[in-house]
Amino acid sequence: MGVLRIGHANLRVMDMAEALKHYENVLGMKRVMEDKNGNVYLKCWDEWDKFSLILSPSDQAGLNHVAYKVEKDADLDDLKAKIEAYGVKTTELAEGTLPSTGRMLQFNLPSGHEMRLYAMKEYVGTEVGTTNPDPWPDNIKGAGVHWLDHCLLMCEMNPEAGINTVADNTKFMIEALDFFLTEQVTVGPGGAIQAAAWLSRTTTPHDIAFVGGPRSGLHHIAFFLDSWHDILKSADVMAKNKTKIDVAPTRHGITRGETIYFFDPSGNRNETFAGLGYLAQRDRPVTTWTEDKLWNGIFYHTGDAVPSFTDVYT
Amino acid sequence: MGVLRIGHANLRVMDMAEALKHYENVLGMKRVMEDKNGNVYLKCWDEWDKFSLILSPSDQAGLNHVAYKVEKDADLDDLKAKIEAYGVKTTELAEGTLPSTGRMLQFNLPSGHEMRLYAMKEYVGTEVGTTNPDPWPDNIKGAGVHWLDHCLLMCEMNPEAGINTVADNTKFMIEALDFFLTEQVTVGPGGAIQAAAWLSRTTTPHDIAFVGGPRSGLHHIAFFLDSWHDILKSADVMAKNKTKIDVAPTRHGITRGETIYFFDPSGNRNETFAGLGYLAQRDRPVTTWTEDKLWNGIFYHTGDAVPSFTDVYT
Amino acid sequence: MGVLRIGHANLRVMDMAEALKHYENVLGMKRVMEDKNGNVYLKCWDEWDKFSLILSPSDQAGLNHVAYKVEKDADLDDLKAKIEAYGVKTTELAEGTLPSTGRMLQFNLPSGHEMRLYAMKEYVGTEVGTTNPDPWPDNIKGAGVHWLDHCLLMCEMNPEAGINTVADNTKFMIEALDFFLTEQVTVGPGGAIQAAAWLSRTTTPHDIAFVGGPRSGLHHIAFFLDSWHDILKSADVMAKNKTKIDVAPTRHGITRGETIYFFDPSGNRNETFAGLGYLAQRDRPVTTWTEDKLWNGIFYHTGDAVPSFTDVYT
Amino acid sequence: MGVLRIGHANLRVMDMAEALKHYENVLGMKRVMEDKNGNVYLKCWDEWDKFSLILSPSDQAGLNHVAYKVEKDADLDDLKAKIEAYGVKTTELAEGTLPSTGRMLQFNLPSGHEMRLYAMKEYVGTEVGTTNPDPWPDNIKGAGVHWLDHCLLMCEMNPEAGINTVADNTKFMIEALDFFLTEQVTVGPGGAIQAAAWLSRTTTPHDIAFVGGPRSGLHHIAFFLDSWHDILKSADVMAKNKTKIDVAPTRHGITRGETIYFFDPSGNRNETFAGLGYLAQRDRPVTTWTEDKLWNGIFYHTGDAVPSFTDVYT
Repeated sequence: MGVLRIGHANLRVMDMAEALKHYENVLGMKRVMEDKNGNVYLKCWDEWDKFSLILSPSDQAGLNHVAYKVEKDADLDDLKAKIEAYGVKTTELAEGTLPSTGRMLQFNLPSGHEMRLYAMKEYVGTEVGTTNPDPWPDNIKGAGVHWLDHCLLMCEMNPEAGINTVADNTKFMIEALDFFLTEQVTVGPGGAIQAAAWLSRTTTPHDIAFVGGPRSGLHHIAFFLDSWHDILKSADVMAKNKTKIDVAPTRHGITRGETIYFFDPSGNRNETFAGLGYLAQRDRPVTTWTEDKLWNGIFYHTGDAVPSFTDVYT
Repeated sequence: MGVLRIGHANLRVMDMAEALKHYENVLGMKRVMEDKNGNVYLKCWDEWDKFSLILSPSDQAGLNHVAYKVEKDADLDDLKAKIEAYGVKTTELAEGTLPSTGRMLQFNLPSGHEMRLYAMKEYVGTEVGTTNPDPWPDNIKGAGVHWLDHCLLMCEMNPEAGINTVADNTKFMIEALDFFLTEQVTVGPGGAIQAAAWLSRTTTPHDIAFVGGPRSGLHHIAFFLDSWHDILKSADVMAKNKTKIDVAPTRHGITRGETIYFFDPSGNRNETFAGLGYLAQRDRPVTTWTEDKLWNGIFYHTGDAVPSFTDVYT
Repeated sequence: MGVLRIGHANLRVMDMAEALKHYENVLGMKRVMEDKNGNVYLKCWDEWDKFSLILSPSDQAGLNHVAYKVEKDADLDDLKAKIEAYGVKTTELAEGTLPSTGRMLQFNLPSGHEMRLYAMKEYVGTEVGTTNPDPWPDNIKGAGVHWLDHCLLMCEMNPEAGINTVADNTKFMIEALDFFLTEQVTVGPGGAIQAAAWLSRTTTPHDIAFVGGPRSGLHHIAFFLDSWHDILKSADVMAKNKTKIDVAPTRHGITRGETIYFFDPSGNRNETFAGLGYLAQRDRPVTTWTEDKLWNGIFYHTGDAVPSFTDVYT
Repeated sequence: MGVLRIGHANLRVMDMAEALKHYENVLGMKRVMEDKNGNVYLKCWDEWDKFSLILSPSDQAGLNHVAYKVEKDADLDDLKAKIEAYGVKTTELAEGTLPSTGRMLQFNLPSGHEMRLYAMKEYVGTEVGTTNPDPWPDNIKGAGVHWLDHCLLMCEMNPEAGINTVADNTKFMIEALDFFLTEQVTVGPGGAIQAAAWLSRTTTPHDIAFVGGPRSGLHHIAFFLDSWHDILKSADVMAKNKTKIDVAPTRHGITRGETIYFFDPSGNRNETFAGLGYLAQRDRPVTTWTEDKLWNGIFYHTGDAVPSFTDVYT
């Protein structure tokens, strides 16, 4: 059946102790293990697999790789064939390359980002269990995010040079990995340039997104919250923890999501994101944002351009 | 790719004028057409296909049929083969049997309920459009429900007589239509009897549900709202319209959904339902509610048995 | 300037350990002291005086007394004169009769309930302080109620016998204590009987309320929450703690408040109450609820009579 | 008993048609009358007096005067005596100077702003009435603000020149009009300079506020909404109407209020403000914000200085 959802992100952080304070106290994730290379693994309370975030010590912030989970082990073989047929080279990483994780298919998106697919990760269960569960666990810390929801990758785009890895990635995700496009930004004469794209495998508005920029990088990883009220609470938590907030509570036109953007201590951008928005479906027509309304799509309320939002990333 | 989502429900109503006042003024649906037999077709503002509710004049309330949309026309042939192979007889209804709707595959669930599958319905678009859309349209009436979200069917169950059409339906939906089970209620010695089941094709907690009872019938059809705040607003709207409320705002343990139950003027139960709840996934273990906690699953806050909730249906 | 607000309630409880679990874990109050008679004193995080609830061990539930705070010590003398002039006998209790509390003026309302006024209680401060405070403290337990907001007293009423202590209390509170009437229920021929009354000194819709019944007693004490979302959270907390819920989340017509009713382990009814509702003002006309709409006033959504709600009290 | 609440504000607008579109469609106020000088009077749905906003045609934006309502006509004489005794000259404006309004006491605050007091304004009733009222009326437009809640006046402050009309106004409001101070900002060595003050007569956190600046003027008038969710809706409404938003949804540290700032078409700043925040009381200690935390007080989440917020006003 193919890709299920985002499985984990592997971020580089420059001060592990500070990073852990952030992801544990502000986001409310729990540390589940550490490997011999100093990588620390964390999970959200509503996730059942062992981890969704790997923090790797580094002298520079950014994304090492993002991984998506597929339904069955055999899907890895099917997808390997499709990806190679598309013309993208893959490498297979043996089970245990990442602890508690099965074999992984590794490849680079046209934008250069490393992506991995895997079918198996150790099951540890959510914090509410599977028998007569409460809707939320006691002792939630900080914002109490539910799960890693999606990532947004900045993709090199230089129309004059004929480079548009947003469009390249989008085509790849649809044709090789069977994602479907939910929303896009089109710019340039006749709106001919696909400058941003939101794609999904689940029936939520996005499981991955691509936005064009001068170089490829990580724009943000996003965590799910239930409601606009939880967004307020998460902003309050950030204020208490002196988290650097990038964009205070607002709504996206794109996806309709309720949002806050903020930075981890190394400068990796995070988002807390609330609401289903709409039921994403393969027969729902793609929503298109035109160049003149681009910023309404990004920040629906003001519609103001915030250059730092698209210029600053890791 | 198979079933996408619930497409429409066809309800019998005893007073069309009263029924329309209810679905238009309380739910906020719009009337889109009427056929020569007096059937009236309605849609929600956030749906793109032409209708999701057909009201049929009758002298008795209840559900005529529920229909699910599949992705491609060829899916109908594949699913026909699977359904027949499962041992369920199907009938093909020609395009136009329902106005603005393609050919339909008609069959009965083991519980006796009529279900239909179709791949095509006239596209009319949501009320916010596909280019630079606002998150919600102006002039929303009443509760302003987003879309028909799911139905819950009461299924004949008589364990002493060896009859359990909840389990029969569940097996059929999984094996023939590739739904996945998200939650269940188990009762009896050793929890051996599956007395209720929630199943999904999307990544929301349920697209259809079955609950055991003395006879098969309709428990409710449910409409999606964004948030707990919208639930309050919808309850206020019902009070203003003197809608008969069955269960005032509360939370389900099952699905975590925020909810109100109420009746249309003919006595068909409706639900307004808010929140994603959790991301339903095929690798997420099934949640099981045991007999002693059944009512916490249904009404999480009080956990009180409300016999009329399971005894009264159409 | 006279009465400021409700200061504390003194409730009788039959199992102190169970009562403390309730008020600490469900409501989120903190225990501040215990006296030599086994009375336990608690406060809410957003209150600055030392306590707002006294739990007294007893073999029967109920209210011993309710106390209101006045602005200045001299107000006690002025009010004593007004109360006595009204024809109600007062007793002065010396400073220290209650620990950390100044002298108190003690008297009985026409309904027989004991009320006390005081001007001084030891200041201990809210949990967020007075310099650059956060909007809420860390480590909130349970529902995290802000403050004791009001009480509703059941007042003996027997129109045939010419007894209506609702009207008697209301007249007394207005004339002797300078409260103002915000809402009332009128019943009987021509709506001549004031069967319930809501009165205020602050600019919130009520600081005290009276409802007629077969005997005088305590209907409930109410605690303030910010929002409908906090009402949901408090209901979730009650479910987790197996608190006996009387009325699940709904809205009052009267005061517009968002509410849950529930019982402490001894059977004293509590309310969590959210929202300002409206700005209560002395020139805002009194809202009147007529007998036929009485239950819409009480439970706006269903408007259904819930006899246990008015018949069961301590 | 003195001052009840803010009664109305009189703003200058440069394009009446545009101004009316704003106050009617975005705020949801209703136009109630127009006088022969072209002044247009508006009211909110939850107000019972005839108007709370007067728009006056002008070639420059700004505040002509702000008026507060007192409880009784005789209060005007008492307050006149107190104000004159304080050393502030008053003028009495005869009944009918403003239509539907009784005699007014006119004077200037130490900051130069014109303030008026009045006891009588024509009663027209809220839109939900006083008998069995619904909690909100049908056909709410735009944000559907409940009432004019408070104003914030910029007050000339030049510490080097010994000018601080924030402190002067605060002293005047407390001593002559019996307001009480709820919060303040103190700056300078030893926090000796009161650079901003929030004062109340009701038991909400503020009925008027003063902030120091290079010249006296209007910072904003604020309208009340129930909840954070209504703040989101009001921001959505502004986006749809292309209202110029100054500060997107956030929380104040000061007052704890949930807020959006935006401008009317003439550049007068408006606020939609939600939540009670806390119960303001005369025995609640004043909250003080120190210079280093000033911006956390203003915008709790980011704590970032936004110079335009204090520099731009009318």
